Amino acid sequence: MAETSQETVKAGILVTGTEVLTAVIRDENGPWLSGRMLELGVELVEIMVVADRPADLLAGLEHMKSAGVDLIVTTGGLGPTADDLTAEVVAEFTGRPLKLDEGMEAKIAAILRRYAATTPIDLSVDAMLAANRKQAMVPDGAVVLDPIGTAPGLAVPGEDLVVLVLPGPPRELRPMWEDALRLPMLQRVLERATPLLSYRLRMFGTPESELASSLREVEAGGLNISNLEVTTCLRRGEVEIDVRYRPAAAAEAEALRDALAQRHAHTLFSFDGTTIDSIVAGLLQGRSLALAESCSAGLLAARITDTPGASGYFAGGVVTYSNRAKTDLLGIDPGLIEAHGAVSPEVAREMATGALERFKADVAVSITGVAGPGGGTEEKPVGFVCFEAITAEGGSQVRSLVIPGDRSDIRERSALVGMHLLRRLLS
Amino acid sequence: MAETSQETVKAGILVTGTEVLTAVIRDENGPWLSGRMLELGVELVEIMVVADRPADLLAGLEHMKSAGVDLIVTTGGLGPTADDLTAEVVAEFTGRPLKLDEGMEAKIAAILRRYAATTPIDLSVDAMLAANRKQAMVPDGAVVLDPIGTAPGLAVPGEDLVVLVLPGPPRELRPMWEDALRLPMLQRVLERATPLLSYRLRMFGTPESELASSLREVEAGGLNISNLEVTTCLRRGEVEIDVRYRPAAAAEAEALRDALAQRHAHTLFSFDGTTIDSIVAGLLQGRSLALAESCSAGLLAARITDTPGASGYFAGGVVTYSNRAKTDLLGIDPGLIEAHGAVSPEVAREMATGALERFKADVAVSITGVAGPGGGTEEKPVGFVCFEAITAEGGSQVRSLVIPGDRSDIRERSALVGMHLLRRLLS
Repeated sequence: MAETSQETVKAGILVTGTEVLTAVIRDENGPWLSGRMLELGVELVEIMVVADRPADLLAGLEHMKSAGVDLIVTTGGLGPTADDLTAEVVAEFTGRPLKLDEGMEAKIAAILRRYAATTPIDLSVDAMLAANRKQAMVPDGAVVLDPIGTAPGLAVPGEDLVVLVLPGPPRELRPMWEDALRLPMLQRVLERATPLLSYRLRMFGTPESELASSLREVEAGGLNISNLEVTTCLRRGEVEIDVRYRPAAAAEAEALRDALAQRHAHTLFSFDGTTIDSIVAGLLQGRSLALAESCSAGLLAARITDTPGASGYFAGGVVTYSNRAKTDLLGIDPGLIEAHGAVSPEVAREMATGALERFKADVAVSITGVAGPGGGTEEKPVGFVCFEAITAEGGSQVRSLVIPGDRSDIRERSALVGMHLLRRLLS
Repeated sequence: MAETSQETVKAGILVTGTEVLTAVIRDENGPWLSGRMLELGVELVEIMVVADRPADLLAGLEHMKSAGVDLIVTTGGLGPTADDLTAEVVAEFTGRPLKLDEGMEAKIAAILRRYAATTPIDLSVDAMLAANRKQAMVPDGAVVLDPIGTAPGLAVPGEDLVVLVLPGPPRELRPMWEDALRLPMLQRVLERATPLLSYRLRMFGTPESELASSLREVEAGGLNISNLEVTTCLRRGEVEIDVRYRPAAAAEAEALRDALAQRHAHTLFSFDGTTIDSIVAGLLQGRSLALAESCSAGLLAARITDTPGASGYFAGGVVTYSNRAKTDLLGIDPGLIEAHGAVSPEVAREMATGALERFKADVAVSITGVAGPGGGTEEKPVGFVCFEAITAEGGSQVRSLVIPGDRSDIRERSALVGMHLLRRLLS
C-alpha cells in the first residue's frame, strides 16, 4: 500500500444546467466540491459548466476521460422533467443500459406522495408516475444513493473511472456527497489519495504583502516550507492563511504556525480558523453590550446578532444617523458636534458613553464616519471613521482610520473594525 | 445579410487559475461574461475552469474548438510571472508564433515604472524587465488591447474562430471586454448574432408556482409566448422575471408585461428592473424615517442606508434587542410586553410609535420576531415576525407572518418585508 499511496487521484466536476450556464443562478457546487476534494488529497483537473443538452454533457464526460481522471462528479439534471438527462447520458457514457430499479421506484413514489400532499404541484397522476419511473431508471451495475430531496444519486463504474451523479440543489448534494464517500466503489478510488491536513490562520491589520515578506524571512531563517501549500486570501477585510500539507510535513507546518504567531502577535487572532464573530461572542458572555452606530448604520448590530444566542449579551443599539438623533437619543451636546464635527473622536466618545448609559450596559462601541460618496473634506475624506469601545470599568480602545474602498466597503469594514476593537478591549 | 442573421454564434469561456479551481477565490468572470453574451444573442456552450497548466489550457481550447464555437474568451494567466501562460498557449493553439510588440513593451514599461514608484514591490530591475518583455510578447497577427491594470489583452484569430484573451481581475476584464467589442475582428463574429432585447419584472408576495400558472393561463388565453425566453428566479425573497426576445417578438413581449401587470397588480412592483431599495428611496424624499428593530437588529437600517444620499431622509433607528431596551429606549410599558409578549402586534405598534416620537420622524417601521434557532413556541414559532409601518398623519400598514428558513433567512426577509411595507404605506 505504501507504493500506491504516492499516486495522484484526479477528478473532474461537470456542472449541468442551463440556469447555471446563463448565470441565472450561481454555481455553489463546483467550489464546494473543489474544497472537499482538496481535503481528500484529490487533484481536481477541471470544472466544466454545460447546459442541459445530452451532446454537451457527453462531450464533457469524454473530455474529462481523455484528461485521465479517476473520478467525475456531475451535479444537476436528476429531476423528473424531460430536460433532466444526466442519468441517461452517464448510462451511455459508461456503456451501461438503464434498468428499472423497483425498490427505488417504490421509494420515490412514497416521496412524491408526501410531496404532493403538502405542495400544490402541477403534475397529473400520469405525469407523476412517468416522472417516478424515469427517476428509478438506473444504469446497470450502478449503486443508487437514497434521495435527500426527491432525486436519487448514482455511483456508476466506468472504464478506469467512477462517475458520481449528484443532484443540483446544494442542500441535497452536500449530504449525498458524504453518503457517497462511504461506498466501497468510491473508497477504492479515494484510498489511493493521501488526505491533506490543514489549518487556517486569520489576521487583521497586517497587509498581505507584509505576510509574504514574513514567509520569505521564515524560509530564509532555515525552515523548509517547500512541502507546505500556503495560500493567503484577503476576505472581507481579514487575511486568511490556509496551510495544507501531507502528514510527513506536520512538523514544518507546526513550526510555521509558531513562527507566524511570534512575528504577528498583535494581528494574528485565530490559530484554528475560529472567526472573529465567535471569539467576540465568547468574550461577551456574562456581559451586556450596547452600540451607537452612525455610518455603519446597524451593520455592527446585525453582525453581532447574526450569532445565535446573542440575546444573552446584546442589549441593543442606536443608529443615530442625523445629528439631531445623536442629541435626542444619546444626549450629545449639539455644541460638541458643532465644535468637532459629527465625525470626530470627541463625538465617538460621547456616543459610546451615551450608549453605555442609555442601555445600562457593561460594554459599548461607537462608530461615526464618512461613508461617501459625498460628504468628504480634505481634513476628513470619504472613508474617515472614528471608533471608541469602552467598558463600564473604564477600559477603552480608540481608533481613527481612513478606510479605502466604496461606500459599501467602508460600511462593512467599519463594522469589522468594531468587532476587532471589542476583541482587544475584552481580551 | 438577412440569411446570415439567422445563424447561431457559439462561444465558450475558459477560466484559468489554480486559485479559482481550488475555490480560494470565486469566479466572477464566467457568470458576468455569460450575461454579456446572452445580451448579444451569442449562445454560450460551456464555461470551463482549469488550473494554470499549459496542457490543461490547451486541452480546454481544443475541446471548445471541437464543440464548434466561433469565439473563445479566456480569463486570467496574463500576469508577469512564470505561471502566467495564457498568451503562449493561445499562440500555440492558433499556430501564431509569439513576437515582441515594441510599442506594447514601452507602454508596459511605463506602467511598471508608475507601479514601482507607488508600491513596495518585490521585483529586481532585471526581473521587472523580463516581466515587461514577457507581457509584450504577442501572437503574430493578434490585436493587442491596451492594459487596464498592468496586463494587455489579446484578440487572436484562429481557424474559424477568434480567441479573446482577457485578464483575470474583474475590474480589468470588464472594461477590456467593452474595448474588445469595438474591434473589427470581434464585430465580424458578433454581427452574425441577433442581440436579444430584455426586460426584468420584480414581484414580492407571489410564489413562483403561481407565476408559472399565470404564464400558462396567459398562453391559454391566446398570447403566443413561444418566442419569448422567460426565466423566473427567486432571489433574496423576491421573484425576478427576465423576459428575453428577438426584436420580431417585441409585441408579444409587451403584451406579456401588460398581462402580468394586470394579473398581479398587488405584488408586481417593478416593471423595468428598478429595485425596491430605489423605489423606497424615491418615496422617502422629503420625509424623515425612523426604525425600531428587534429580530432584524439593524438589517433594515443597514439596507436603507446602503443607498447613497440616505442621510437626506433617514433620521435613525433603535435596535431594542432586550425587553429592557424596549422600555428604556422606546418607553414601552413593561406590562404590555408581559401581557402580549415582546413578539406581538401590540408591541410592534408601540415600537413604531415610540420610534416616530423619539426621532421626531414622519414615518416609522417596527420589526419584532423570533429569529431562532431557540425561542419558538407553538403559538409563536421560530419565524413569527410582527411588523408595523406608520406615518405621522395616521397611515398604517400591519403584518404578522411566519417566515420560513433559518435564522439568517428570517432576519434578512424581515428587513425585506419592512421595505415592502414602506412602499405600500407611502405609495
